[in-house]
Parts: sequence; structure tokens; C-alpha cells
Amino acid sequence: MEKPLILVTNDDGIVAPGIRALVDVASKIGEVVVVAPDSPQSGQGHAITINHPIRLRKVNIFDGVEAYECSGTPVDCVKLAKNVLLKDRNIDLCVSGINHGSNASINIIYSGTMSAAMEASLEDVDSIGFSLLDYSFDADFSVASHYAERIIREVLENGIKECNLLNVNFPKLDKNSIKGIKVVSQGEGRWVEEFQEGIDPRGQKYYWLSGYFENINPEEDSDINALNDGYISVVPSGHNLTQYKAIPKLKYLEKIN
Amino acid sequence: MEKPLILVTNDDGIVAPGIRALVDVASKIGEVVVVAPDSPQSGQGHAITINHPIRLRKVNIFDGVEAYECSGTPVDCVKLAKNVLLKDRNIDLCVSGINHGSNASINIIYSGTMSAAMEASLEDVDSIGFSLLDYSFDADFSVASHYAERIIREVLENGIKECNLLNVNFPKLDKNSIKGIKVVSQGEGRWVEEFQEGIDPRGQKYYWLSGYFENINPEEDSDINALNDGYISVVPSGHNLTQYKAIPKLKYLEKIN
Repeated sequence: MEKPLILVTNDDGIVAPGIRALVDVASKIGEVVVVAPDSPQSGQGHAITINHPIRLRKVNIFDGVEAYECSGTPVDCVKLAKNVLLKDRNIDLCVSGINHGSNASINIIYSGTMSAAMEASLEDVDSIGFSLLDYSFDADFSVASHYAERIIREVLENGIKECNLLNVNFPKLDKNSIKGIKVVSQGEGRWVEEFQEGIDPRGQKYYWLSGYFENINPEEDSDINALNDGYISVVPSGHNLTQYKAIPKLKYLEKIN
Repeated sequence: MEKPLILVTNDDGIVAPGIRALVDVASKIGEVVVVAPDSPQSGQGHAITINHPIRLRKVNIFDGVEAYECSGTPVDCVKLAKNVLLKDRNIDLCVSGINHGSNASINIIYSGTMSAAMEASLEDVDSIGFSLLDYSFDADFSVASHYAERIIREVLENGIKECNLLNVNFPKLDKNSIKGIKVVSQGEGRWVEEFQEGIDPRGQKYYWLSGYFENINPEEDSDINALNDGYISVVPSGHNLTQYKAIPKLKYLEKIN
């Protein structure tokens, strides 16, 4: 088999240790092209840049690997890779991450890492977002890298079934403490928001987003619970937000004229 | 019944004609508080501002209506409204829009308008995003306003069943040409991307996102098709992206160690 072409991106920016770990993994498996933001873009969700132009600049920071930094969002990076840089080639897989911090549960909605992966999946490219439950810059990605490599190899060989997007989260545990992998659903959770309020040096009031994550349904077979139990979580994901069971219940709106 | 408390937001910015139309509608029905971005935020998706503080400034541009402009994203606006401005009150409904342009199909993922509505729904506030299929600044919102008022009244009286988020899109048609309302599913579509490439005044290359929308499955009972047929589309929506049928098919990944 020819070497697969793997697109690597993230949201923590092209110099984050997490993407370096993922580039190392992907380079063992295939031909790698990196397109990642030139600055941190956590929490960018599925933002795209429409009101101004974006830039792409070749960089030489990964040994022997073609790489570009982009002034846009994570989703912009994938759009540029798919439609400009690699438009005449077939991308076998897009991998995004390894994110510094969890993207389990509802975090998939806010995450630039997962939105980049979702964008690839929307463009018919199989895609995996990887995240480690450790926000620190000097997080240890060695265990995550071990499993990321095995998951990528499996997916390239067997395909992602019935969907083309996986949300993979690694607990912050050493190899011996990890119990295995669980394929589960997106957990119900939410951010309980608090804002730090303050006065800036010019005397103006500001608000700074803060808050903590709350697991709403701790009984279910979800990614949050798998992670809490010491497993790596894999959630097959999509982009259809329709609540089908609500459709018949809302037919009463059709009488409006 | 006491007057319901309605939070109004959007992504086109607080001075857009679309939000003015929605404030007028909401003011006929309840007590209104407006928190909207101080500049256009289309395509911001579910972006949140975490790396710097945000500002909130009271404005007096809607006759007799409490209103604030916010320096953050549409989602930030809702978070601030729910957790700071209105934290001691019960918000009966959040309405977002009326957006200048379609948020049908996959546009729900990219849209700041719909992400703001979704954020309210994540915080247990019933929420509706309204969009008119007309991108122009001087779009005519009169027909959309007529139906938005009726939909809001129905929802306040009967509730949103089995979910708490509606994605409502209005075709660009006059009242007599609109065939009615259809409660349908999110259509399968995608953006076929093109980038306008150019050279800036300093001789540097740039890329500017362009492209057109493609309806992938024109047969189904979807929002895109309802709109094409002259109906207003209502899609009950959620935030769970799990592809449940893929879970058993991907159990093979659990053998990895």
C-alpha cells in the first residue's frame, strides 16, 4: 500500500507540544502535511474567517515534514489545506491535536481542535481529534502518542464505520493505569459559568470567562464516565443536530399562518 | 400571566436591521433585554473568548428597551446575559437574529446566530434562532417578523417539545407567496470552497474564503427543500453529535492496548 497522506492540524497553535507529538506519530505511518494556526485558537469552535483575508506561511519546524502556519482559525486551516494546498491530492486522514485539555462531552462544540476535525469530515475526509486531559504546556504526551498511533493505524486499515469523525480523549494516566479504550457516546455535561469581574488599568470594567464543568448524567455510558473510570474514550461523531423525536411533537407550529 | 422575559441577541451586530426587527417583535410580547456583539460576528460559530477580557456597554438605541453591546462573540453575549446581567432572573426565552442570510442545513455549525441560540439552550433556556434568506443590509424583515411573532407566542404558550432549540429560516418571499411552515430535519449540504487568491499592497499573498452551498440530498424532508418549496423551515435541534449506530461498529477499537 502506498503511504497514506495525513493532514495534521490543531487549535493550540503550530508550536504547541501536542501537535509535535501528533506529527511524530503521523510521520511513522504516512506522508504528513501540517497546516495549523500561527497562534493559540482554543475555544474558537467552528469559527471561520470571512471578513478579511488569511495568510499561509511555510515553516520548517518539524524535521523533514511539510508544514504551514495559517493566520486563520482551525477550521480555516483545514479549508485551505483541502481546497488550496492539497486540492489535487487525496487526503486519507485528518488528525487534529493532540489538544492540551479535554474535549469530551459538550466541549466538542467549543473546541477548535474538534471543529477542525469536523470540517475535514464535512469535506469527506476521515478525521480524528485527539485530546489529553492535561491543560499544561509541558504535559506528557507519550502514552497518548502510543494509543494515537494504534488508533490511526486501525482506522486507516478498517475505516471509520457509519461516520467519519472520531472524538478521542485520553485520561491523564500512565500506561499501566489506563484500563483500555471504550467506544461511547457524548456525555451530557455543561459549563457552569462564572465571570471574573475586574477594573482595568484605565478604570474600565471587564469580564473574564471562567467556570467549571459539570457532568449532568453520571449514570450513562458516556465519554466523561469512561475517562473518569480510567479508559480512553472514543465517540463516533457527526454534524446533524436534528432532534428527530421532536419533529412530530412540533407539528402544531405548522398551523401558523 | 406575567410578562415573559426575552433575551435578544444576534451575530450581525447590535446595529443590524435584523436585530431591530426582532426587538420590535419581542417587545410586543414580553420584557426585552438585548445583549449583542458590538461588531459583525458572522461565521463565528461557537467561539468563546477565553484569552482576554470582554466588555459590556449599555446602549440606548432601541426605544425603551434595556440593551448592551458586548465586545465578545455571540456565545459570549449569551453567557454574560445569563450569568451576569440576568443571573438572578428567569429568562423565559432567548431569540437570536433575525440573521441576514440562511442558517439552514450545515450552516447551523458555522453560524454565530445559531451558536448563540444553542448556548442559551445549553444553559436550559428555551431558544430560537431566526434567519432570513437575504444577505443584504436592507432586507425586508416584515414577513419574517410576522411569523417570528406568531412562533414566539406559540412556543411561550406550548413549549418546545423534546428539545429546547429551534432553527427557523424564512424564504425571501412576500406573504402571499409563502406556503406555510414545515417542521423538518437539518438538510445534508456542504460548502464547496473556493479561495480568492490575491497579492496585497505590500506584495504578500493572501487567501479569502469564498464558495457556494451544495444541497447533497435533495429528496429528503429537510429544511433546504422546505425553503426551496416556499415554506418556512423549523428544525428542532440539539447539541449531541454522537453517531449512535456507529458505536457497535467501532467496538473493534476496544481491542487496542
